[in-house]
Amino acid sequence: MNTYHHPHERLEDLDLKGLKIIQNPDFFCFGIDAVLLAWFAAGGIHPRHHVLDLGTGTGIIPLLLYGRTQARAIEALELQDNMVDLARRNMALNGLSEVIHVHQGDLRHPGPAFSSSSYDVITCNPPYMRLDRGVKNPSETVAISRHELTCTTEDVLEFARVMLKDRGKLYLVQRADRLADVIAAMRSKGVEAKRLMAVHPYAHKAANLILVEAIKKGKPYLKIEPPLVVYNEDGSYTQAINAIYGTEGPQPRP
Amino acid sequence: MNTYHHPHERLEDLDLKGLKIIQNPDFFCFGIDAVLLAWFAAGGIHPRHHVLDLGTGTGIIPLLLYGRTQARAIEALELQDNMVDLARRNMALNGLSEVIHVHQGDLRHPGPAFSSSSYDVITCNPPYMRLDRGVKNPSETVAISRHELTCTTEDVLEFARVMLKDRGKLYLVQRADRLADVIAAMRSKGVEAKRLMAVHPYAHKAANLILVEAIKKGKPYLKIEPPLVVYNEDGSYTQAINAIYGTEGPQPRP
Repeated sequence: MNTYHHPHERLEDLDLKGLKIIQNPDFFCFGIDAVLLAWFAAGGIHPRHHVLDLGTGTGIIPLLLYGRTQARAIEALELQDNMVDLARRNMALNGLSEVIHVHQGDLRHPGPAFSSSSYDVITCNPPYMRLDRGVKNPSETVAISRHELTCTTEDVLEFARVMLKDRGKLYLVQRADRLADVIAAMRSKGVEAKRLMAVHPYAHKAANLILVEAIKKGKPYLKIEPPLVVYNEDGSYTQAINAIYGTEGPQPRP
Repeated sequence: MNTYHHPHERLEDLDLKGLKIIQNPDFFCFGIDAVLLAWFAAGGIHPRHHVLDLGTGTGIIPLLLYGRTQARAIEALELQDNMVDLARRNMALNGLSEVIHVHQGDLRHPGPAFSSSSYDVITCNPPYMRLDRGVKNPSETVAISRHELTCTTEDVLEFARVMLKDRGKLYLVQRADRLADVIAAMRSKGVEAKRLMAVHPYAHKAANLILVEAIKKGKPYLKIEPPLVVYNEDGSYTQAINAIYGTEGPQPRP
């Protein structure tokens, strides 16, 4: 127990440079998607890059990017008051309140705290479900985190179109079945999909997640990376997943 | 030698229900892309389906679809006179002139031989290169087969939009780096990408081809199939490729 951690919350060690995270089991807790997105994006981040995570939730992605890269100008934006409070406590818990700045705000109306063409890298683990699909969670906080109630893929792309520098990069994780939506929205906003990695639960199963790197004003050619497979046939984690988690980050849960 | 086969041409056994094909080494000869497209499309073809192959070249895809499915209403469209002649000789060689009808024409101006909303399945192995990319082949026939001189992805999609029945399927093979172009063009024409399979030369290499199934008036959700890997690390064909070629079709060349 510490001063940042409330009794009903869960404290977890990220196994990454001593970083820890508080999560609230009543809210949306981070999963493999956040870990994979941070890993995927880290390769495109240089020490001087100005990085922003949209819809940061607990702040897991900025924390992982801090741990995985040399970037020290990291910001985060979160709409929901209770998640902003949690994310700020997570930064304080890790002594990073001065390094990772958590903004409270709506990416659809970013306001004066954000300047156009100012970010080198934007990351986003957006709501996965279109409003017309899926059973909405009775908790409003969870519903906002899962469904496109307050932000659609188009909203994220519009933000990226305005706020990225030319040639700046957007890293998104999404459900695999949204691939066409994501690519079409990127094209329509001039933030071109340049690199795609599909994540398959098993080698013989359809993908369930996609990781996409897009470049503002990028030319229309895309690289399809070898896919990432999560489980071996015996249910153990693959070498690739163990290397991503490994000693460098939080452990996957079975 | 037979009456359909000219001396400078090459006669090849398809190892599929006794089918044979004549190719002209001066023109564009079929490759693994045509074989994979026919295999990918065959799963969506029912015996009563009305099937059309666009830009058929030698007629390889209609021949493979004939061999792999029960469909017996197969048509093909080809622009270039010399390729139309070769495709028709290939049908005659196989005794299929009454089964597979080869039209000469331009898919951008299909004319009265084609009725709107009349096909269940359209296949296309289109030119891969945008006009602004790649060295054009000095042979005009090869250049037309490789580059978008006479037909773009948008032209193929516009044809499919008009000529497919509602819920009819389009099967395309394309270079992997054109994925975003293909998906965006499909979306803009209301022929929605529904199934994607990436083809990787080796498991650890980026994809070089994509196979895409799209459905006219389909809903915007897409399935990313497990990828197809062509070679094992030792350079031999994978089990998956051997199963596709196997005893069911022409053998891959090293």
